[in-house]
Amino acid sequence: MRLEYVGIRVKDMDESIRFYTELLGMKLLDRAKIPTTKGETAALQSPGSKLVLELNYYEEGSPFATPYEAGDGLDHLGFKVDDVKAEFENLRRKGATVALEPFEETNDKEATGFLAFVQDPNGIWIELFQ
Amino acid sequence: MRLEYVGIRVKDMDESIRFYTELLGMKLLDRAKIPTTKGETAALQSPGSKLVLELNYYEEGSPFATPYEAGDGLDHLGFKVDDVKAEFENLRRKGATVALEPFEETNDKEATGFLAFVQDPNGIWIELFQ
Repeated sequence: MRLEYVGIRVKDMDESIRFYTELLGMKLLDRAKIPTTKGETAALQSPGSKLVLELNYYEEGSPFATPYEAGDGLDHLGFKVDDVKAEFENLRRKGATVALEPFEETNDKEATGFLAFVQDPNGIWIELFQ
Repeated sequence: MRLEYVGIRVKDMDESIRFYTELLGMKLLDRAKIPTTKGETAALQSPGSKLVLELNYYEEGSPFATPYEAGDGLDHLGFKVDDVKAEFENLRRKGATVALEPFEETNDKEATGFLAFVQDPNGIWIELFQ
């Protein structure tokens, strides 16, 4: 078996599609209603990446439409960029919520370079790295 | 920019690595301490998949070691398998926590086949699909 895609839950499908396409440059592959869950899904992909991000929305009355807390399970989504500082400023200018200004990180083996974090409309942390 | 990896937060690094390698068949690519965050990360990948799953652990005293709630942000991780029912029984036998027994799902366009869900050691939902 293999990990094929990652599904995040969103509070507003249109707003989240707008964020992931217009701000983060992903392409909308598909969007479909799911009667079983009283929900809707959308699949997105970055050009040049095989990773599929699925947005999951549950309408009122769905058994999965629990009060939304972004929570700790999803730590962050990692987006590779050419220039962390430039992309961070670009996203800030476009209205993305700032989580952490650009900073330099090292692990116990090597310097891992500049990182910065913004938040998606659901409060999910988006990492920018080079 | 492109979506490159997904990072989930885990409560116990060894237990989570065991689950994703021994039960879900992923390979451990790397594991490193991160002094900046008082944390540790591990990168995993399924054979045949380009998607990297990063496990993030934060030790006591780390600014990110908030009380752990799996939360709603990460809806689920999707694993493609050859046979949903057989793999679900296999994982149950190996001690995985059951979330949803196998069931058939359709969307507004097509039948999407059998799905089943188990939970990882952090409470994160793992979807099995064919």
